[in-house]
Amino acid sequence: MIKVAIFGASGYVANELIRLLLNHEKVEISFLFSETYKNKFLHQVHPNFKKLTNIRFLGYDELEKALSCDLVFLASTYNFSLKYVPIFLKKGLKVIDLTPMFRLKNPEYYQTYYKIKHPCPELLEKAVYGLPEINRELIKEAKLVACPGCIATSSIIALYPLIKSRIIKSYPIIIDAKMGSSGSGSRYSQASIYSERANSIRAYKPTNHRHTPEIEEFLSRISKEEIKIALSAHSINIVRGLLATIHCFFENELSIKDLWKIYRSFYSKENFIRIVREEKGIHRFPDPKNLIGSNYCDIGFDIDERNKRIVLLSALDNLTKGAAGNAIQSMNIMFNMDEKEGLKSISPYPI
Amino acid sequence: MIKVAIFGASGYVANELIRLLLNHEKVEISFLFSETYKNKFLHQVHPNFKKLTNIRFLGYDELEKALSCDLVFLASTYNFSLKYVPIFLKKGLKVIDLTPMFRLKNPEYYQTYYKIKHPCPELLEKAVYGLPEINRELIKEAKLVACPGCIATSSIIALYPLIKSRIIKSYPIIIDAKMGSSGSGSRYSQASIYSERANSIRAYKPTNHRHTPEIEEFLSRISKEEIKIALSAHSINIVRGLLATIHCFFENELSIKDLWKIYRSFYSKENFIRIVREEKGIHRFPDPKNLIGSNYCDIGFDIDERNKRIVLLSALDNLTKGAAGNAIQSMNIMFNMDEKEGLKSISPYPI
Amino acid sequence: MIKVAIFGASGYVANELIRLLLNHEKVEISFLFSETYKNKFLHQVHPNFKKLTNIRFLGYDELEKALSCDLVFLASTYNFSLKYVPIFLKKGLKVIDLTPMFRLKNPEYYQTYYKIKHPCPELLEKAVYGLPEINRELIKEAKLVACPGCIATSSIIALYPLIKSRIIKSYPIIIDAKMGSSGSGSRYSQASIYSERANSIRAYKPTNHRHTPEIEEFLSRISKEEIKIALSAHSINIVRGLLATIHCFFENELSIKDLWKIYRSFYSKENFIRIVREEKGIHRFPDPKNLIGSNYCDIGFDIDERNKRIVLLSALDNLTKGAAGNAIQSMNIMFNMDEKEGLKSISPYPI
Amino acid sequence: MIKVAIFGASGYVANELIRLLLNHEKVEISFLFSETYKNKFLHQVHPNFKKLTNIRFLGYDELEKALSCDLVFLASTYNFSLKYVPIFLKKGLKVIDLTPMFRLKNPEYYQTYYKIKHPCPELLEKAVYGLPEINRELIKEAKLVACPGCIATSSIIALYPLIKSRIIKSYPIIIDAKMGSSGSGSRYSQASIYSERANSIRAYKPTNHRHTPEIEEFLSRISKEEIKIALSAHSINIVRGLLATIHCFFENELSIKDLWKIYRSFYSKENFIRIVREEKGIHRFPDPKNLIGSNYCDIGFDIDERNKRIVLLSALDNLTKGAAGNAIQSMNIMFNMDEKEGLKSISPYPI
Repeated sequence: MIKVAIFGASGYVANELIRLLLNHEKVEISFLFSETYKNKFLHQVHPNFKKLTNIRFLGYDELEKALSCDLVFLASTYNFSLKYVPIFLKKGLKVIDLTPMFRLKNPEYYQTYYKIKHPCPELLEKAVYGLPEINRELIKEAKLVACPGCIATSSIIALYPLIKSRIIKSYPIIIDAKMGSSGSGSRYSQASIYSERANSIRAYKPTNHRHTPEIEEFLSRISKEEIKIALSAHSINIVRGLLATIHCFFENELSIKDLWKIYRSFYSKENFIRIVREEKGIHRFPDPKNLIGSNYCDIGFDIDERNKRIVLLSALDNLTKGAAGNAIQSMNIMFNMDEKEGLKSISPYPI
Repeated sequence: MIKVAIFGASGYVANELIRLLLNHEKVEISFLFSETYKNKFLHQVHPNFKKLTNIRFLGYDELEKALSCDLVFLASTYNFSLKYVPIFLKKGLKVIDLTPMFRLKNPEYYQTYYKIKHPCPELLEKAVYGLPEINRELIKEAKLVACPGCIATSSIIALYPLIKSRIIKSYPIIIDAKMGSSGSGSRYSQASIYSERANSIRAYKPTNHRHTPEIEEFLSRISKEEIKIALSAHSINIVRGLLATIHCFFENELSIKDLWKIYRSFYSKENFIRIVREEKGIHRFPDPKNLIGSNYCDIGFDIDERNKRIVLLSALDNLTKGAAGNAIQSMNIMFNMDEKEGLKSISPYPI
Repeated sequence: MIKVAIFGASGYVANELIRLLLNHEKVEISFLFSETYKNKFLHQVHPNFKKLTNIRFLGYDELEKALSCDLVFLASTYNFSLKYVPIFLKKGLKVIDLTPMFRLKNPEYYQTYYKIKHPCPELLEKAVYGLPEINRELIKEAKLVACPGCIATSSIIALYPLIKSRIIKSYPIIIDAKMGSSGSGSRYSQASIYSERANSIRAYKPTNHRHTPEIEEFLSRISKEEIKIALSAHSINIVRGLLATIHCFFENELSIKDLWKIYRSFYSKENFIRIVREEKGIHRFPDPKNLIGSNYCDIGFDIDERNKRIVLLSALDNLTKGAAGNAIQSMNIMFNMDEKEGLKSISPYPI
Repeated sequence: MIKVAIFGASGYVANELIRLLLNHEKVEISFLFSETYKNKFLHQVHPNFKKLTNIRFLGYDELEKALSCDLVFLASTYNFSLKYVPIFLKKGLKVIDLTPMFRLKNPEYYQTYYKIKHPCPELLEKAVYGLPEINRELIKEAKLVACPGCIATSSIIALYPLIKSRIIKSYPIIIDAKMGSSGSGSRYSQASIYSERANSIRAYKPTNHRHTPEIEEFLSRISKEEIKIALSAHSINIVRGLLATIHCFFENELSIKDLWKIYRSFYSKENFIRIVREEKGIHRFPDPKNLIGSNYCDIGFDIDERNKRIVLLSALDNLTKGAAGNAIQSMNIMFNMDEKEGLKSISPYPI
């Protein structure tokens, strides 16, 4: 059994990690850390776990205990990751960091987008961007995996085959993202209350979204081309789920059949990517409603002949494939386990 | 492996049966029947199953195939159950019927509440009411299990300990139920469209709800007392989930501690019943949000000293413990399997 | 023009007051007070008012200005009302208080339900309970009107005709209330965030709800009988709206026709009460969805013959008839204006 | 008093027309036509109007009655408009058509986008596109006003100042629209039920949306340039409201101040256009939540320096400014009334 600890265990990403790990046959959750809720039972914060386990939260005063684990998941604050990732690595633990603090290679981006001077830039190059479908070989050997942001995961998975196939003729690619509320976590503010957020379509980041550099940097590296993206993010009236609508342009002839061929060639063997494109019916394109709680990323496409535009639709559950599920998939790869282990939860429908 | 077939396989209850059975290690879904969608792939109707199975729907012209199964689940029309339950039983199959057609012992109720003359009243006495927590011994030997309605399940589980303990002093007991939309199935009508149903609190059955006689009859039989209930049902702005608020009155002294004692004595060994009552916090009483997709029924209680009133709160997912999950739990008992098999799906949170 | 000031002007009740008053032809909003947002423009807090007015919030340091008004609406904290109601009255202003601080006659209830010793119990008897349909004559002469709580308004309006007609045979009457999120105001807490509250049915007050004593006291006074009620309140997945389902019992014969007769005799001349009871269709009973933003209270009823139970359904918009609309209706009466003035806003549908 | 009749009076657009017209001081609703609901009272279909009027629906057998009116609103089927617009015009009535049947000048578009051969192409040139803010002068003289689609209204209003100011450097302009359910009307289908549509983000028209040609044709005509747009439309989890996110590119220097200047110069005198752009806070960009039931179109903008991209955000209520409100504004112009008459309804907040 692989022993893991989770930091930031009172948040929504941690809830999803715990949910999936409780059904993982080869992993044991050894410790849950939450400074705020220390000594409380897990289910007092996460009511879905009542009757499933009697584990309690530990405070950071007992942090040493984590050192007996094989792997730590960090789903806590940015500062916690910056401080403890180097320490855990030095102690020989593997680390999966779910904050953005080790996603980018270029330390300057941290200054631009996060207003911080990164304290350990030397680790950035060592960190592996945790996108299993594309980075599987690197993840196998990684000590530190930096889990991508949910918009980044959905966008990169959708764009990768087109970029590798040199289909896109011009940049920036436009990404118009629609997000559920759980993406902004369990902290509260005036903006997050039900009365303010219900029935709203809030363009919370029309420009300068922080997932921008990770998408650009990663796509540019794998394609050896400078890829520019233009991202706008909206929060909408759902709790879980993300749809990224991606608008890009092609030059030559391109048919739906061509796109099927491209996407199949990249993804038909992937366990967690589904190509969704029907001629008719309610479910002809990806919709997060169809995959809540599962680790799928659903990809669809359409062609706008008049404009030589491709519309990509990429849906996932921001807490699962967009965070915790993806992290567990990476863990499975790091420890040479079946990639599907712990990720067999099927989406309830309708929800 | 136990072989099962599902009739009415395009509906929401069937979706949930399939979801749970796909993770059941000892059951194989042999056939799915849907006249409307025959020959279509499962995922064309139920998008959550894409990539999980290639099974297609069969039409009723291939109904004979079901006879090779060990068990059939009937989640189709009332008429289908009335016609085929006797046939399947005669052919030696076990049957779990999810319609109301075999829930009641007294055939007159079918005339009163369903406006039909029951065609095989002799089977009513043989049918076992599929409430595992209370009827486990009978389910073990049953050939025909009639799955309770979701309001009935939530209400009976909440009331059973009080009634057996002779706590309630007067009747009727008032049950005020709040239901998600999936309870009314996947058929469409003016009343069911999003624009009409969103943001609505619709008292769709303030009186004469069809779950009334099954609650009364079952509670009266197990308590050997005439129990009367007064049920009002509302549909609210959620897809899944049911909360029954039950108002009843006691005579003598009664404390919260007494209630804990009673409920623990009845249910502490039950896998799928949780007693939820905290002194403070968001989750101090049962809330369907906390158990979506799981097979739990959460029970809570409060005492209104001034009125000598007990308020019971009973929450479940109408498609899981309120239908499909409960049916699978019964199947596990009928075939002497671990009662939890196929029911380990943990509720995602938040949702 | 009547000049009014509003205290607590950044809250949701104040928003509704402002919305209605901006269309009131005989009232001028002279001052809006909000300590938190002082100097900000109204629309920076309440975005619906952008382009409609350039008024700004005043801080409490400018409170003196209010003394030039004819009337003040208090929609601020409990403490503010307790402190300033006596002062405003002494200065000769009329006061409409939207907090609960002057609703009850018996000061002991404040100790029991609000954990405070009321500082000016002598004013309690002078305050008029602001339910225009029942208390119209007293409101005409009132200096201080205490606006009822939303559950109280919906419940009392529904019950009054039955109680006056001596139809109800036993107590307590059970009131099962379903509330939108705006009822708990614009303050934020963990419990109020979208991710926690969406898709939830939360029994936030199964017993001991603070609207209990005001319903009991008022109904008892007008009927000269001791009326007991047993109230349970739930928050559900909508922003605006309240449905109270009221369960009570009758003794003798009673038909739907009888109920029509009773309700018509009490309310057919009332502008803001509608009796909603159709034999069929989506809208056969009251539903808050049908009256959002209007000042209606919709009343419906059904009879459960088997149990000699009457089910009353009472719907209103908690911010309009449940608070601000009702307050303006009272103001119109106090100043001898047309009772409908400022209240002609028609509910958009669907919403 | 101007007399109007409404055809297709049972739909949602008609509901909104009626709501606004009931508060219009110079218009009388003479007749409501609905074949399906003939003889029913208005409130049996539209529950929000109960107690406000006793008008009943007429069937099309009484269509002649409409000829006594000054104006007819057509909110019925496409075929009804195609057949009756010429007839009403010939009889001397003014017509406001809310279907798309007279929006386009080029009859070929009807073949391409609607699969019909337009029966009266000669009327297309005479019809005036009903966008008051841009077409006011033409509307004054119009006999036939064709009301724009909701996505077209929001997009054109947002784009017009940039296009007239020659700011946009390349085409197509990308419009990513997010729509509430009421946009697809009150008809029901599997796709429209609550269980299917709740919590969904459905890309129902990623390409080839029917509002495409009306936006392109209108913008091209007024700018004397060939404007291309690339529209993708999504339905989301709300009933009312539309947000169009528009991505376009500029060439030279451009600052937020420049944009303020441009938008102010075009729209500062417009009653129903608000420029919404704050530096911080929840409401810094347009959000349909803030204008439900009002006739506002809110416009905001942001600049993505890295990509020389402008992001426009345009929000409206699809039933008000997106349909009925806009139609009434046009009517006010046609009859030389105050443009704001009947449109003073203020959006309730929160909703």
